[in-house]
Amino acid sequence: MAYKIGEKTIKFENGPVIKNFASVCGKKESEGPLGKLFDKTFDDNSLGEKTWERSEGMLQKEAVNIAVKKSLINKNDLDFVFAGDLLNQCISSVLGLKDHKISFLGQFGACSTMAQTLIMASLAVESGAAKNAVAVTSSHFCSAERQYRFPLDYGGQRTPCAQWTVTGSGAMIVGKGEGLKIKSAVIGCIEDLGITDSSNMGAAMAPAAATTFMSFINDTGTSQEDFDLILTGDLGEVGSKLFKEILNKKNIDVTKKYNDCGLMIYYREDQDVHAGGSGCGCSAAVLCSIILQKMQKKELNNILFLATGALMSPTSFQQGETIPGIAHLVQISN
Amino acid sequence: MAYKIGEKTIKFENGPVIKNFASVCGKKESEGPLGKLFDKTFDDNSLGEKTWERSEGMLQKEAVNIAVKKSLINKNDLDFVFAGDLLNQCISSVLGLKDHKISFLGQFGACSTMAQTLIMASLAVESGAAKNAVAVTSSHFCSAERQYRFPLDYGGQRTPCAQWTVTGSGAMIVGKGEGLKIKSAVIGCIEDLGITDSSNMGAAMAPAAATTFMSFINDTGTSQEDFDLILTGDLGEVGSKLFKEILNKKNIDVTKKYNDCGLMIYYREDQDVHAGGSGCGCSAAVLCSIILQKMQKKELNNILFLATGALMSPTSFQQGETIPGIAHLVQISN
Repeated sequence: MAYKIGEKTIKFENGPVIKNFASVCGKKESEGPLGKLFDKTFDDNSLGEKTWERSEGMLQKEAVNIAVKKSLINKNDLDFVFAGDLLNQCISSVLGLKDHKISFLGQFGACSTMAQTLIMASLAVESGAAKNAVAVTSSHFCSAERQYRFPLDYGGQRTPCAQWTVTGSGAMIVGKGEGLKIKSAVIGCIEDLGITDSSNMGAAMAPAAATTFMSFINDTGTSQEDFDLILTGDLGEVGSKLFKEILNKKNIDVTKKYNDCGLMIYYREDQDVHAGGSGCGCSAAVLCSIILQKMQKKELNNILFLATGALMSPTSFQQGETIPGIAHLVQISN
Repeated sequence: MAYKIGEKTIKFENGPVIKNFASVCGKKESEGPLGKLFDKTFDDNSLGEKTWERSEGMLQKEAVNIAVKKSLINKNDLDFVFAGDLLNQCISSVLGLKDHKISFLGQFGACSTMAQTLIMASLAVESGAAKNAVAVTSSHFCSAERQYRFPLDYGGQRTPCAQWTVTGSGAMIVGKGEGLKIKSAVIGCIEDLGITDSSNMGAAMAPAAATTFMSFINDTGTSQEDFDLILTGDLGEVGSKLFKEILNKKNIDVTKKYNDCGLMIYYREDQDVHAGGSGCGCSAAVLCSIILQKMQKKELNNILFLATGALMSPTSFQQGETIPGIAHLVQISN
């Protein structure tokens, strides 16, 4: 059974585990510092598909297939798939997974979706309803940019605080038995600080990340020193700085333990990505490569994964709505 | 604990219950046969908001507020809200619930989302992670038509098989103790039969409804005779007929036990709605009014709620993609 401690933190008593995982990325990501750690990369970002939405779907399909293979379980033993992406109506998840014939639950938490799907899969396993559940998310530069910002051919200039949407996917198989333990989680609330600049997602998401982190620290009586790594999803340079500043004001200095998936996936100077990577494929691909690989090798033993999302739509943005943020936290340990 | 029987069916041992519920609708719905049964209706479908997306959000906000009040619980005792709508990035759920300060999990299953959120809330309670969780969905004629079909002012002619998107929301408080029991559930797979007509959603969704229904019947060894009502979400006239035909071919005649929320919410002849109501506010508002009210009065004691979704996006439709369907089932009883 799971149970709640404090205000927000869910503890998993029976310890659902990540049996195995996989990451799949595009060309630019293959040329970044983590390029060799992804299970598969594609030189052609279309993946041979006729639309970018399908290309993105294929990333999810591949990630799930490889994760299933690495977990040494039968695809028929997968009870549910919790899947999400940034696109309208989670369409890439649908296109990518419709042939898989696994009970399907579309999740939307913007770039926080990797943490959301992982928590949902953990709850499903912990409740007894699922023996094994898949958590998978993706993003694709070409499908996301077109939907949220400008047509690709327009070649609009990007602001310094803009981030680069990762073409990638990460999938995890959650079940019982051997694996990396899901110890606890915090599901965040929507936090709206009035940010309206869709080229500065980091600023929209950082306060939510700080709130969720503080909930966990307060509920559990732990401190940053208790963890090998505090990893945010895709705050990028601007958001990461802001996250650390907010915590500094509370006399918490996470600097020595902190990193951000968006700052890890590209050579920022050479790859022209400005403030870093973003998208729910960013945290998915980084978590499901270098991070969980290091955990399997016991180079990391106890981490907090804190994925953040900017809850906007192309319509709400045009309507001048603010961009509320949200952050979900998962504690993973050996 | 929950457990699985057969291929697909989840049984809830501890019986999460629907403590209470509420429905909120617009003007057209208030003039339909269920008009007096909704907890609140609005003569002005804008609800005084400046965008239709906000108006829809307010429907959710009201539905949640009333459901909380009727459940006699404190809003602080709500652990999670599982919310969804038809709009890009579930934006109405975000706009409606951002001030509620409840841990937020966006769900997308198109018109099946009411069943999806109810199952997720049940899993959260059953796992022990939540004492109380909210399941809420909405749709709004003006936000949905504009997004999926034509601009409202265009006045396009509607095909005979088209359905009318319900302006409404339904919310349920799921917890432990007294209430209507969630006995079992089936989470459906994506089913793609190659339908491409977005004005004929019923046809896209009916096969998925039949598959999910058959999974439940086969897994549990029950028959249609064991239930007081088999209620689909919004198959409408075309889809309902198709659903019954598919089951007839398997020698199952559900006619005497069957109804569809889309066929119940309007006076179809007089209200010019063609094949019936649709949208995830349709099944939400019908379930959270006449159906659950009759269950509370013990006029219905054991029902199957089978909500269906058409997994398309405005983009995928323009790209000529097929419209896959999905259906989730929940057994509710006294």
